[in-house]
Amino acid sequence: MIITQAHGGGGRVTSGLVEDLFFRYFDNDILRKAGDSAVVDGAPKIAVTTDSFVVDPIEYDGGDIGRLSVCGTVNDLLAAGAQPRYLTCGFILQEGLEIKTLERIVSSMADTAKEAGVSIVAGDTKVTEGRGGLFINTSGVGYVPEGRDISAENIKEGDAVILSGCLGEHHAAILKSRMNIKNNIISDNAPLVSMVEALFENGIHVHAMRDVTRGGLATVLSEMAGTAKAGIVIYEDRLPENESVRGFCSLLGLETIYMGNEGKMIFFVSEDDTERALDLIRKDRYGKNAAVIGEVKQAEDRGSVHMRTLTGGTRRLEAMTGEGLPRIC
Amino acid sequence: MIITQAHGGGGRVTSGLVEDLFFRYFDNDILRKAGDSAVVDGAPKIAVTTDSFVVDPIEYDGGDIGRLSVCGTVNDLLAAGAQPRYLTCGFILQEGLEIKTLERIVSSMADTAKEAGVSIVAGDTKVTEGRGGLFINTSGVGYVPEGRDISAENIKEGDAVILSGCLGEHHAAILKSRMNIKNNIISDNAPLVSMVEALFENGIHVHAMRDVTRGGLATVLSEMAGTAKAGIVIYEDRLPENESVRGFCSLLGLETIYMGNEGKMIFFVSEDDTERALDLIRKDRYGKNAAVIGEVKQAEDRGSVHMRTLTGGTRRLEAMTGEGLPRIC
Repeated sequence: MIITQAHGGGGRVTSGLVEDLFFRYFDNDILRKAGDSAVVDGAPKIAVTTDSFVVDPIEYDGGDIGRLSVCGTVNDLLAAGAQPRYLTCGFILQEGLEIKTLERIVSSMADTAKEAGVSIVAGDTKVTEGRGGLFINTSGVGYVPEGRDISAENIKEGDAVILSGCLGEHHAAILKSRMNIKNNIISDNAPLVSMVEALFENGIHVHAMRDVTRGGLATVLSEMAGTAKAGIVIYEDRLPENESVRGFCSLLGLETIYMGNEGKMIFFVSEDDTERALDLIRKDRYGKNAAVIGEVKQAEDRGSVHMRTLTGGTRRLEAMTGEGLPRIC
Repeated sequence: MIITQAHGGGGRVTSGLVEDLFFRYFDNDILRKAGDSAVVDGAPKIAVTTDSFVVDPIEYDGGDIGRLSVCGTVNDLLAAGAQPRYLTCGFILQEGLEIKTLERIVSSMADTAKEAGVSIVAGDTKVTEGRGGLFINTSGVGYVPEGRDISAENIKEGDAVILSGCLGEHHAAILKSRMNIKNNIISDNAPLVSMVEALFENGIHVHAMRDVTRGGLATVLSEMAGTAKAGIVIYEDRLPENESVRGFCSLLGLETIYMGNEGKMIFFVSEDDTERALDLIRKDRYGKNAAVIGEVKQAEDRGSVHMRTLTGGTRRLEAMTGEGLPRIC
């Protein structure tokens, strides 16, 4: 069974797909009751975000576009200090997509949503010509607890910069899959809800955070330094590294600081909280390799990121120029 | 200037596009402050919805994919009884898309958002291979005022069924464009905020409503009758008709009750409010041709829709089977 134009026509075949597949896996009362919109409980402050996923291939070692689409949006909500609550999903299916493949992806989305504690409450399905691929948009709503203010603008002198794990795993997993190389690298795609909530529950003063996706750590830190008008210093020898990814990247001439990740967060926390924050992050299943990789020093050029290199030099990091790896997420 | 993979890479070229195009047209403080998520004021009850748009062609008589993407999501929020507030937009751009074309579409989105009174607060841009096309996902959040409960489940015996205007205009506009036919048919794509709010402001008892999109009136009414377990009767001679659309459709053997619209709402209102509701809808710029097209009669087969035909017969309307017109929205 494959996807045809009728699955996107809005008639009986579309509603059959919705009933038999989406409702079955995403099952919840809100979704079943929703017409074209879901009505849900709100909160005084909410965070809203959106991400479209066009990753190629749609299944890869360690994940798939379904898991990715939940992780990306959940992590974006977390980065705004929000507790992720509701997701919507918009599928753009290409004619010829195997319904069994779609089912695996929908099942993976459902599992990841459950892990992240979010409900998928509304959806949409369109069909286009193509070669059996699919794109997914997920948009998300989260509650922002009173008094929680997370923003790059809040970064302060002396803040510790903590990275939750090794760089480049998702990027390398996509690349090896396209190159048809077998090795033990798997994508890091993960929802970081428990890691982030542990920090807030324990009173850690988190000033800013970002998930380190397209463009990699260098791009994300450059953007944050620009917003904060702060000087950020990181130390190359403190960057946690996955040996397999390092080997793979050195062969290909890639730098992990420019590679995309899908389950890594960068935190700016009060200097006094550094050790406690690191311990809490390391206790999380997705934070075992976390490290304090640098600090905020206003004395450095404001709005810039410098890296002390392994060879003892200093390198100014810029946002990525050029195209990176197409269709990584 | 055309779109390249670098515009979706997440580095400097992506942020240039975001600054120079999206921020310029969608300009608002929330969007500028947003990192990957926007933090906004919420409400105790909110409505959440999503829609992806793959319409082909992306520009057509009376509108474009940008205007459409705002109207579709705004009208879905309205249909849940919500006051539309925030939109997110996810662009999937194909390599080769002219940036001037994208700019026209973004400008049209911005104008339509302004007309609808919504702010675009978060966005995402991806680039894929292709032939210069684009897809847009818009997701939306609206506030649901206390005590407002709009649902097909609330449809009651005797309710008037009011259609806000002529059927088939969007569908016919897309079709004629693909067939390269010149005539005076234009898409009805419109945000129906003022029409719907006028009803609530004037105390009309609206029990249910739906925007009449893919699958057309017959499909939407069938779905609502099924949810409500109500019998709906409509009268063919009361359906408001656009003469040009009627002529075009009769040539092609198309039925307007199965054709897609993008600015038409079907309302179920208390019998006592029928005339007042109709007057209010007709006063709106998008409701001049509104008509009472039928009523709810529980005595008819429950969960079914019957149409009294021009020839005096009765026809049971079913949801659309088959594919309809591909990529109409």
